[in-house]
Amino acid sequence: MNNRNIIVSVIGAAGYSGVELVRILTKHPVVSIGALVANSNAGKKLSDISLHAKNEAKMFETYSPEAIASSDLVFVALPSGEGFEIISDLTSQGKSVIDLGGDFRLQNTSEYKKYYGRDHQHQNLLNKAIYGMPELNRDSIATSQFISNPGCYATSIILPLVPLVKSAVISDSHIVVNSYSGISGAGKKNTFEYSFTELNDSIQAYKANGSHQHIPEIKQGVRQFGGSDISFTFVPHLAPITRGIHTTVTAPLMPGITANDVLTAFHEQYKDEPFVALSPDVPPALKRVQHTNMIEIGWNINADTNTLVIFSAIDNLMKGAAGQAVQNMNIMCGFEETMGL
Amino acid sequence: MNNRNIIVSVIGAAGYSGVELVRILTKHPVVSIGALVANSNAGKKLSDISLHAKNEAKMFETYSPEAIASSDLVFVALPSGEGFEIISDLTSQGKSVIDLGGDFRLQNTSEYKKYYGRDHQHQNLLNKAIYGMPELNRDSIATSQFISNPGCYATSIILPLVPLVKSAVISDSHIVVNSYSGISGAGKKNTFEYSFTELNDSIQAYKANGSHQHIPEIKQGVRQFGGSDISFTFVPHLAPITRGIHTTVTAPLMPGITANDVLTAFHEQYKDEPFVALSPDVPPALKRVQHTNMIEIGWNINADTNTLVIFSAIDNLMKGAAGQAVQNMNIMCGFEETMGL
Amino acid sequence: MNNRNIIVSVIGAAGYSGVELVRILTKHPVVSIGALVANSNAGKKLSDISLHAKNEAKMFETYSPEAIASSDLVFVALPSGEGFEIISDLTSQGKSVIDLGGDFRLQNTSEYKKYYGRDHQHQNLLNKAIYGMPELNRDSIATSQFISNPGCYATSIILPLVPLVKSAVISDSHIVVNSYSGISGAGKKNTFEYSFTELNDSIQAYKANGSHQHIPEIKQGVRQFGGSDISFTFVPHLAPITRGIHTTVTAPLMPGITANDVLTAFHEQYKDEPFVALSPDVPPALKRVQHTNMIEIGWNINADTNTLVIFSAIDNLMKGAAGQAVQNMNIMCGFEETMGL
Amino acid sequence: MNNRNIIVSVIGAAGYSGVELVRILTKHPVVSIGALVANSNAGKKLSDISLHAKNEAKMFETYSPEAIASSDLVFVALPSGEGFEIISDLTSQGKSVIDLGGDFRLQNTSEYKKYYGRDHQHQNLLNKAIYGMPELNRDSIATSQFISNPGCYATSIILPLVPLVKSAVISDSHIVVNSYSGISGAGKKNTFEYSFTELNDSIQAYKANGSHQHIPEIKQGVRQFGGSDISFTFVPHLAPITRGIHTTVTAPLMPGITANDVLTAFHEQYKDEPFVALSPDVPPALKRVQHTNMIEIGWNINADTNTLVIFSAIDNLMKGAAGQAVQNMNIMCGFEETMGL
Repeated sequence: MNNRNIIVSVIGAAGYSGVELVRILTKHPVVSIGALVANSNAGKKLSDISLHAKNEAKMFETYSPEAIASSDLVFVALPSGEGFEIISDLTSQGKSVIDLGGDFRLQNTSEYKKYYGRDHQHQNLLNKAIYGMPELNRDSIATSQFISNPGCYATSIILPLVPLVKSAVISDSHIVVNSYSGISGAGKKNTFEYSFTELNDSIQAYKANGSHQHIPEIKQGVRQFGGSDISFTFVPHLAPITRGIHTTVTAPLMPGITANDVLTAFHEQYKDEPFVALSPDVPPALKRVQHTNMIEIGWNINADTNTLVIFSAIDNLMKGAAGQAVQNMNIMCGFEETMGL
Repeated sequence: MNNRNIIVSVIGAAGYSGVELVRILTKHPVVSIGALVANSNAGKKLSDISLHAKNEAKMFETYSPEAIASSDLVFVALPSGEGFEIISDLTSQGKSVIDLGGDFRLQNTSEYKKYYGRDHQHQNLLNKAIYGMPELNRDSIATSQFISNPGCYATSIILPLVPLVKSAVISDSHIVVNSYSGISGAGKKNTFEYSFTELNDSIQAYKANGSHQHIPEIKQGVRQFGGSDISFTFVPHLAPITRGIHTTVTAPLMPGITANDVLTAFHEQYKDEPFVALSPDVPPALKRVQHTNMIEIGWNINADTNTLVIFSAIDNLMKGAAGQAVQNMNIMCGFEETMGL
Repeated sequence: MNNRNIIVSVIGAAGYSGVELVRILTKHPVVSIGALVANSNAGKKLSDISLHAKNEAKMFETYSPEAIASSDLVFVALPSGEGFEIISDLTSQGKSVIDLGGDFRLQNTSEYKKYYGRDHQHQNLLNKAIYGMPELNRDSIATSQFISNPGCYATSIILPLVPLVKSAVISDSHIVVNSYSGISGAGKKNTFEYSFTELNDSIQAYKANGSHQHIPEIKQGVRQFGGSDISFTFVPHLAPITRGIHTTVTAPLMPGITANDVLTAFHEQYKDEPFVALSPDVPPALKRVQHTNMIEIGWNINADTNTLVIFSAIDNLMKGAAGQAVQNMNIMCGFEETMGL
Repeated sequence: MNNRNIIVSVIGAAGYSGVELVRILTKHPVVSIGALVANSNAGKKLSDISLHAKNEAKMFETYSPEAIASSDLVFVALPSGEGFEIISDLTSQGKSVIDLGGDFRLQNTSEYKKYYGRDHQHQNLLNKAIYGMPELNRDSIATSQFISNPGCYATSIILPLVPLVKSAVISDSHIVVNSYSGISGAGKKNTFEYSFTELNDSIQAYKANGSHQHIPEIKQGVRQFGGSDISFTFVPHLAPITRGIHTTVTAPLMPGITANDVLTAFHEQYKDEPFVALSPDVPPALKRVQHTNMIEIGWNINADTNTLVIFSAIDNLMKGAAGQAVQNMNIMCGFEETMGL
């Protein structure tokens, strides 16, 4: 290991986000992979799950302190609720940690209980957890050792909303958010409802009553980065797509706001961001962002209703999960932010 | 031909809606097919385009008064703007006509000009045209000889909105409508933008600035059947699906409205309708309505924002075009409304 | 009920083939539906599973002799191995039976054991079972009370092979059959391997070692209807499609065979068949047969290798299952063969 | 530019293969991009076509000698027949050239005329063109300045066949090749036949009469690398997939060949190859190779017919086009073969 190189392990390496992480890390120029922890796939080879790199020697293993002893940084890509103990161990050992689960995103533990349906088990760690959305708080990320990686829907919604709220371009109420997610967003599934025949050629909403756990995350993010409390209705849907989230937001324009004001708000926030593409003329298409770490943001003014229609498109496994996690790692470690992405 | 049988012709019989019409009519128990007019496919056999019925003897032909001379009723499934002269001829000959195009949907000709981009060429026929939405005006349809068949998006939006507006369940403003259409809704296409590789696995909005021609149709329909003027923002999208429209509407609930009030509004309007399925518990899925003439309507209350989220799902070629057209024919001709559907 | 009407029940009514059967039977002009037996969905309404007909009063129920006591004919759409006792009961009660499972397709019980992995439990019924492929043995079907409905792959392969074998157009060896099936062919699945994310955008073979249970069925069918024993290699695949089987067969042409001989062989067998479309010029596409009971057959001669390339396309749930079953019912009952299809 | 870096231009940079090339080259550690030539997109920004990298400053331009004057190596990703003059210019200027089109793949110009339908315009260059299939002739590639990059189908077929033919594991006749290609393999299309609605959920064969231009390329490749002339029937199909080719080959096993002989043949040829994954147990799935430069090869013996069934899966834009082209560039330039891939 030269003086720039780091050893990185992944816990939950065989899930969709974990596989994507390993794919990126394998090609990352200054990272060495330590352990690939995947309890239920322990003993299998990486190449049994993923051919992104022909890396046959690498095996999945079960979690143990020894497995990650030499790691400098550990990604935890476990389902929400399953990583509490491991994360607590890792941080107490002084490892840098990036958690792709939802357990450390909400600072408010009663909201955590309400939306995740369980008590928070490590409130003491919450004040160390930095919500890692690089375009909005990369300075905090750079000095953190524990990053809570944003949710996929939340990423696709907070990034377009923050500049508009900060600039008072849109109202803080009567905001409507409709998101359509590719099926990989649900993780690996073995239920009839997620079978190909049931989902192909179909579209269906779920959790439309306001119970989705990303709602408080989005509110918290817009408050933290945009400076305002907003009220919005969020309707998530499943679409017959493997990867990607397409979000359409509608929000009342504030009085006197012009098309140029909208453009300015977005340009001021994002014009130099390497992973944000602004598309004022052509609505973003999922096709353009799949397999990239980009978010594309577009918009239209509906003059009849004085409403701003905003679109975003991301790859849920990249900017919505593994890609953004590596972006956070690059910032934490002082690497070039786009390295390996 | 027994005394109940009628002869029916289709003009524009080789387009997606036309093919679907012919498929239904071929199996309709009391209809005989007259001419299949399709100018650019004239001379081809029906079975070259569609195998829904092995009907090899039937040929497409070019339009002529002779071709449809023996027909009692004619479906016109031409692109908007292309059917004016034919429809004028047919009505002056005393034929019953069902127009699947958009030219006779809007009673206001200045709105027609604004949204369709051309002058209306037969304003004199507008007062004879009945907008044919059977669940809302089947008595008018029964006595009409000229039906303007509703648009696909409009069908998926007017049917769920009318009972809510009529019962004052929802506000008349801050209504947001997001619709996702299967690609067949655009008709037969030969452009790069509609190629498989560009649309598969993708989602993209279009005409999000309030310019879609179904907007005035929806306003007119809700006013006519629901009794109120509403203001809404409509955002149409393309989804990687062959057939179907999935619509999600959000609207502020009026003060004091309960879940039971919503249920009552829908039940009062639709509980005995053969082609309306109400699904208060499970959000409608496109999969359930494809290749049927059903509209499925579902809803959820978001208590946080006091918003009603309403879903509808239709097959754009059936309830959104050919199926509803045959439903209208059945009513016009005094057949059982579900016959052949 | 007039004197032509019959009462029909479906056992296994909530599976993919069962739902399709119910959809067809609901619209069939001379059939009344008796019981819809679906043990694991008992108590649910038909409209919970399928909206093809808004038939809310109809409930799924568990199997009992009473449930089907008034039925004249019973479709059994259970997984292979699960229908032995029910079928034995039904036949002993004098009911007409159409079995969509595989248990009574093979006359040779040692082949049954080899390919299905279990002993045959009712060999005594095998001599009453007629393999129901209407285009090839409708006279036997017409006088039978117990039809074994062919398998989906087998239908797509036997129908194109028989006229070629009968006319000695192709060799009886070095035949290769590649089939690509839509995922509904596997039935309702709740395993990771059948999840949308794993199958979308992908293609994969299975059982390529000659172990597929349709292999002896195809050999038996070609021997019975074509008069020869053939040797072939069968490779089934899964394709990212909901419904349909596309089969490509290659077979050496016999010496001296001309293009006209091939055409003649197909025309002699099928030119008047209502559900067979011959397409000598354009290769069949799945799109053309989905949601129909048609089989489309096409072919090309490869002169370099003196090989005949034959294509077939069917909807696996229609001509490959429920559609063919209703076609068999129509023949058994003396109805017009295309009725309701 | 340091002493390892090279400047690389792409001609035809806005087509599907061109975009994929630019995506790879943008992230390649020792390559600088020179000109992006795309005549019909000249003046557009790279980011208008592709967001794989936010590379806004880079513009497409028209071809001119000046545009590529400083380039060391030029990829030509033009349709077959359109690159003759440019390639002649480039080679005469001493540039290294990698041609992704088909014009320099066949050494036999009468076969070129027969399968491509035109006279070859630069026979004098044919003896300089090296067919670049790295796993089979990387030494020749390393010393060449003009690489003809293999066709996508040909890659998916030659690589599995060569070790089997070389080891005399399979017969040289009665070989059948069925390939299913994603639609991007056809390039950017603006015809009805390639529209989403026509291709989604469908499968269809084409050029099944032995006229596909990859047939002589495959024969030539197997002769050159495997040492034998083979006879095979090739049937290409379109499948509803954006990217990928899935190929199933069946071939008679030679007498006495065992399962171990097959395994040995593949292992001897490919066991150390970075971009070949051998899967003797699980049939390859397209899903595993998409967006990678891998070919996965699997097989099964059908003992009944003494036939070997061989599968391969590639991404047609990667191992089938741009990825293999970069692999060839790496070899030509003395870079690590997997660099940037």
